[in-house]
Amino acid sequence: MKIAFALSAALSLMLVSSPAAPGEEQAAERRGRGRELGITIGTLPTGRWNAITDVAGVKVGHVTLNQGQGKLVPGQGPVRTGVTAVLPRADVWREKVPAGSFVLNGNGEMTGLEWIEESGYLETPIALTNTLNVGRVYDGLISYMLKRYPEIGVTDVTINPVVAECDDSELNDIQGRHVSDAATVRALENARSGPVEEGAVGAGTGMIAFGFKAGIGTSSRVIPPGDGGYTVGVLVNANMESREHLTIKGAPVGRELPGPAQRSGDGSIIIIVATDAPLSARQLKRLARRAPLGLARTGALSRHSSGDLILAFSTGNTIPHQPKDRASALIELADTRLNPLFQAVEEATEEAVLNALTAAPTVVGRDGRVAEGLPLEKVKEILRKYNQLR
Amino acid sequence: MKIAFALSAALSLMLVSSPAAPGEEQAAERRGRGRELGITIGTLPTGRWNAITDVAGVKVGHVTLNQGQGKLVPGQGPVRTGVTAVLPRADVWREKVPAGSFVLNGNGEMTGLEWIEESGYLETPIALTNTLNVGRVYDGLISYMLKRYPEIGVTDVTINPVVAECDDSELNDIQGRHVSDAATVRALENARSGPVEEGAVGAGTGMIAFGFKAGIGTSSRVIPPGDGGYTVGVLVNANMESREHLTIKGAPVGRELPGPAQRSGDGSIIIIVATDAPLSARQLKRLARRAPLGLARTGALSRHSSGDLILAFSTGNTIPHQPKDRASALIELADTRLNPLFQAVEEATEEAVLNALTAAPTVVGRDGRVAEGLPLEKVKEILRKYNQLR
Amino acid sequence: MKIAFALSAALSLMLVSSPAAPGEEQAAERRGRGRELGITIGTLPTGRWNAITDVAGVKVGHVTLNQGQGKLVPGQGPVRTGVTAVLPRADVWREKVPAGSFVLNGNGEMTGLEWIEESGYLETPIALTNTLNVGRVYDGLISYMLKRYPEIGVTDVTINPVVAECDDSELNDIQGRHVSDAATVRALENARSGPVEEGAVGAGTGMIAFGFKAGIGTSSRVIPPGDGGYTVGVLVNANMESREHLTIKGAPVGRELPGPAQRSGDGSIIIIVATDAPLSARQLKRLARRAPLGLARTGALSRHSSGDLILAFSTGNTIPHQPKDRASALIELADTRLNPLFQAVEEATEEAVLNALTAAPTVVGRDGRVAEGLPLEKVKEILRKYNQLR
Amino acid sequence: MKIAFALSAALSLMLVSSPAAPGEEQAAERRGRGRELGITIGTLPTGRWNAITDVAGVKVGHVTLNQGQGKLVPGQGPVRTGVTAVLPRADVWREKVPAGSFVLNGNGEMTGLEWIEESGYLETPIALTNTLNVGRVYDGLISYMLKRYPEIGVTDVTINPVVAECDDSELNDIQGRHVSDAATVRALENARSGPVEEGAVGAGTGMIAFGFKAGIGTSSRVIPPGDGGYTVGVLVNANMESREHLTIKGAPVGRELPGPAQRSGDGSIIIIVATDAPLSARQLKRLARRAPLGLARTGALSRHSSGDLILAFSTGNTIPHQPKDRASALIELADTRLNPLFQAVEEATEEAVLNALTAAPTVVGRDGRVAEGLPLEKVKEILRKYNQLR
Repeated sequence: MKIAFALSAALSLMLVSSPAAPGEEQAAERRGRGRELGITIGTLPTGRWNAITDVAGVKVGHVTLNQGQGKLVPGQGPVRTGVTAVLPRADVWREKVPAGSFVLNGNGEMTGLEWIEESGYLETPIALTNTLNVGRVYDGLISYMLKRYPEIGVTDVTINPVVAECDDSELNDIQGRHVSDAATVRALENARSGPVEEGAVGAGTGMIAFGFKAGIGTSSRVIPPGDGGYTVGVLVNANMESREHLTIKGAPVGRELPGPAQRSGDGSIIIIVATDAPLSARQLKRLARRAPLGLARTGALSRHSSGDLILAFSTGNTIPHQPKDRASALIELADTRLNPLFQAVEEATEEAVLNALTAAPTVVGRDGRVAEGLPLEKVKEILRKYNQLR
Repeated sequence: MKIAFALSAALSLMLVSSPAAPGEEQAAERRGRGRELGITIGTLPTGRWNAITDVAGVKVGHVTLNQGQGKLVPGQGPVRTGVTAVLPRADVWREKVPAGSFVLNGNGEMTGLEWIEESGYLETPIALTNTLNVGRVYDGLISYMLKRYPEIGVTDVTINPVVAECDDSELNDIQGRHVSDAATVRALENARSGPVEEGAVGAGTGMIAFGFKAGIGTSSRVIPPGDGGYTVGVLVNANMESREHLTIKGAPVGRELPGPAQRSGDGSIIIIVATDAPLSARQLKRLARRAPLGLARTGALSRHSSGDLILAFSTGNTIPHQPKDRASALIELADTRLNPLFQAVEEATEEAVLNALTAAPTVVGRDGRVAEGLPLEKVKEILRKYNQLR
Repeated sequence: MKIAFALSAALSLMLVSSPAAPGEEQAAERRGRGRELGITIGTLPTGRWNAITDVAGVKVGHVTLNQGQGKLVPGQGPVRTGVTAVLPRADVWREKVPAGSFVLNGNGEMTGLEWIEESGYLETPIALTNTLNVGRVYDGLISYMLKRYPEIGVTDVTINPVVAECDDSELNDIQGRHVSDAATVRALENARSGPVEEGAVGAGTGMIAFGFKAGIGTSSRVIPPGDGGYTVGVLVNANMESREHLTIKGAPVGRELPGPAQRSGDGSIIIIVATDAPLSARQLKRLARRAPLGLARTGALSRHSSGDLILAFSTGNTIPHQPKDRASALIELADTRLNPLFQAVEEATEEAVLNALTAAPTVVGRDGRVAEGLPLEKVKEILRKYNQLR
Repeated sequence: MKIAFALSAALSLMLVSSPAAPGEEQAAERRGRGRELGITIGTLPTGRWNAITDVAGVKVGHVTLNQGQGKLVPGQGPVRTGVTAVLPRADVWREKVPAGSFVLNGNGEMTGLEWIEESGYLETPIALTNTLNVGRVYDGLISYMLKRYPEIGVTDVTINPVVAECDDSELNDIQGRHVSDAATVRALENARSGPVEEGAVGAGTGMIAFGFKAGIGTSSRVIPPGDGGYTVGVLVNANMESREHLTIKGAPVGRELPGPAQRSGDGSIIIIVATDAPLSARQLKRLARRAPLGLARTGALSRHSSGDLILAFSTGNTIPHQPKDRASALIELADTRLNPLFQAVEEATEEAVLNALTAAPTVVGRDGRVAEGLPLEKVKEILRKYNQLR
């Protein structure tokens, strides 16, 4: 049977992925990552976790909301959504990170980009969620910041946080805006280093890419010691493109997979790039502009309806909050040495999308709609046919 | 006495400016607009109301929140804030308006700009509020849209609304995020054509510009019939710059006004430009880039901390929602005919800032902080000295 | 020996490719295009010529300069360079075409982009050449325009033409700036419809990509009649990336080709996109942003030193010169119908790069440097190994 | 009669302003600068020369071409044009300066901006000239670079120089493209520190602003020692706007000056901003965005036909050519300390435009067209009326 429904008994519960509260249930099936299936993207080695958290100090937290099943009752359920938090470092407010963005396709929202472009830095955690939930998650991110920095807006300046979205209305009661202020704070407070859950978790809970269940994926690369030995990590929320375009290492996987009429491929992808290389905002914009090149190799066209927004930051520099010194030094890796980092961004982006697909199980959402998990054995067969399986 | 405190008896009430509920009180003092004082900006005639609402179909709604006085208790009050809604036309979701933006200084937030840049249109009303309230007002704007268009996110696509902010923490308990979902919906639903309240109303309730109480201001211009007779309207939320730079028609008003040590001038300005001239997104970006030239003539430097963001839209074209036709015609006024519109944008922007200042009374905010109303008689004296009073 | 040197007897002659003057010699070897080798990129059908000239009215002209051999004498030779002209339509000055650009990597020059961004149109032909020759070709393009439109700068406005460059100094005496005013005018005047010469011709004469001889390549796509049946044509001047990254349909061709230490891959690529779909400047920028996605599938990283600039124009709209009417209608295909055009841009870009490689023979340049032609039989073998040869 | 025509006897000679060759003649009349007339812009003090050359190391060179009179013979004369070179420092190729640009209105050309945006630095001198002469001056700038750095394009990388233009076809035989390679090299080689000639010199020879003869103008500001004591210098080539909009310190000078039907005001302005404050490219873009605010105070609208392009650079950082170190430190003044620099840019831009007008004498150009010098006594009268003369 095609539908290995991972959430069977749990459908009427509120699942919180990280950490699980007593009585809550984790997604059962462990499907594996691209590399475990024998698919190697590119030539650079990965970091320890093959995750954005390989960049020292970066933490990721998910809150996953799965509740109810059956017919959509707008404002009530079924709920297939969540929030994913990415924390660049322990105290990004007082030790800001240089950052730069690129909008491949602006059919989406990532708040805070004007301030990042102007200041050259990121000073809040990043939160990913669904399209209609941006307001509440934005408010939750502010609640988190006010709790930690009660001087904001009293004796200190205010904030313009970063919240980015994809549309999960295919599976989720998106009108319900189920990700609350409290859930957002929890995702932020529970964020941690180490392995990152992928697929139908956090903001990825209701996402679909290439007509298959997708969502959160991550990957990393370490460049050679002679080039500085820096790490690049990428995390995506993949929700774009129709089945026919799915390509893995040049193999036309989407076209060769038998399947029913596909779901519309008109979602989006959010891409977060982290590195410990000492870069400036200008250079991080250069890195951000390379992420689409990795995305392209998965077959994605960047369709009209796809909000494809990329944000890159570096933990290799620290910009002080309310600086006391007149001037400070920003360390810039020589631009002539950026090529290995470009390659790392492209490989990790491509692999993060792949991991989002291989990790996500089949999910049944609103109105009984089924988003199939990528059929891993069939994919391996196709890759074998094109001599692309390790 | 300098402080004509307009809100005396009302301080512990919740004031809603538009429309006033039974028992609520309107701001008492009518201080007048620049033209009433004898100050004429530029040479083009104004529209009937000298307001953004002179562009047919444009509506403005305010909800003004004034509550409590005395010492700041973060999260509780005093409250000096609000929300201002600008509706481009009756049904901007189904009849989208071309739009374009310009960021003079990105130290602020205006959500939705990536989608406007990509699509070339605006499809939701615009809401202005305080910095920390963006999330809740964003959510309120979504509530308003879902109420009117219940198919959003169910059988229709989702939305990326436009919410812009300035920081009113000088006077307001900004941590309290007092503008609720309901207040936002009310501002939107009560928006109307005709004269627009200015000064310490709506999103302008707690704003300060040039060291004086400011906030919402508006103005309009009508270009000659031979140039098409189009109308340009501008609405600002003025919250920027320190006193010494205030300049009116070249007169160094700020430097000549006696005054105590000034408040920091490090707020922002949001500028909304409307026109009925048939323009494309590309052309509206050209208009948006002219607004700072009008702003400059008020003496504003566009300081580091000032989020100076401009959004321009045109009611002279209609872009259908989910178009059925393969292609449609966008009417573009010849670019060689844009100069009168540029002049109109610049004059109306300059005058809208002036009106924000002349309309706003003295307001006492958190911790007894006083934001003086611009001393109108003294300003007239100074303008007389420079032969600039009509 | 591997080097089938195509220009043997001709090395001390000045070769002009289009049209050949009496006594001049054409490049001898016809190596073939990707499709002739059995390599099919994507799924959309090509136009008649599989060239940018499939967009009705578009013309291409080359002047190819090959002169001298042996040791570089700066300012004298050897000469391996040229100029390629792309004419959007017969009279683009009086019937301007909407246009939009995207800079993937700004390490290069394409003049005229500020005016295209502001006006939304292209009003001169486009000329491609080598980096140090931009000034002379710019001047030649002006000479051409003045000859045709003697009122320019006298009773009519002036021009900001489009000249784009790649660096051919690996093979060419680039200091010599051998492309004269006259050669530029000739390329423009001799431009024609129909098949387009590819490889080491015109501006591509001295270019190298993926460590192999490359240069001019072109391809086209026709979208389904139900989507409008529009044509998209792409022309590239390919001069980027190192051998190891060359990828064809996912096959790691560069890594599997035996070879000596590679030439640095630090050149650039210029990409010109043409279509007859009725699009606005805004939409053409969307198309331009998709070209890198096709480029990515060839394995290019967009290295630091690579000036990767894209210009897209549409013959489906006409913007009058010095318009007499107050306003005019710009036809915009519905954005919801752009996906087939995006796909067409991506496929044609990928194939144009491939064609530049398969068409270009081995060329010996300054100091006896050899740029090998892509070894076509070996490439076919590799593609067979990955089951990617038709 | 007011017109003291400065070039009377010299009209058939080729005048070279800097330095004068034997037998050549300098412009006779010294008309004075704004401050000498009693007009003080802003409140910050100027540098020693009140010129862009107050930024240590910055040099300016002009070559002024005046030849022939009477009826225009396209390609021959009369010639009223030239070239102005700005050298950021002695060896900007090996010691690059951070740079950033802003395009207020892209109806013009400034080459090299893509590379500046990507790299964050400027590595060649800047040359200003007329619109149709861009190709030849570009080529001349390359000649100058090749002469000094013969390894360019041989063993070293190539260059994308910066050439910016305004249209002097009102007075000049612009089709003639009279500024040669040699003249460009001469302007570069003769550039010097100290006072800068203004008005109808160099690239400003044929320029007209506000309906009066204008051209090159410059000014500088020094910010307080407590803010770092940095210098900001601005140089403009002013060629924009019609008479009626000329405003000096708020006084409507253009409207109060009697005059015949005006020349069209549809030229451009190029603005070069230099500073010794240690800034990054990002921060220099912020400075560049403030120049229009100073321009606005002169009354300029930034009309449709006006190519208003700004380039800002800092000598306070040095970026090495072909860096040997893996990374280097870029010093950034704290953004919270930028306000005095913003003010300096705005004041110096406003005053540079004023100086261009006050310095330029009446000039007779092609077809006997007269561009009147600003009538200084009448201007002083008008300023007195508005109490704005010191």
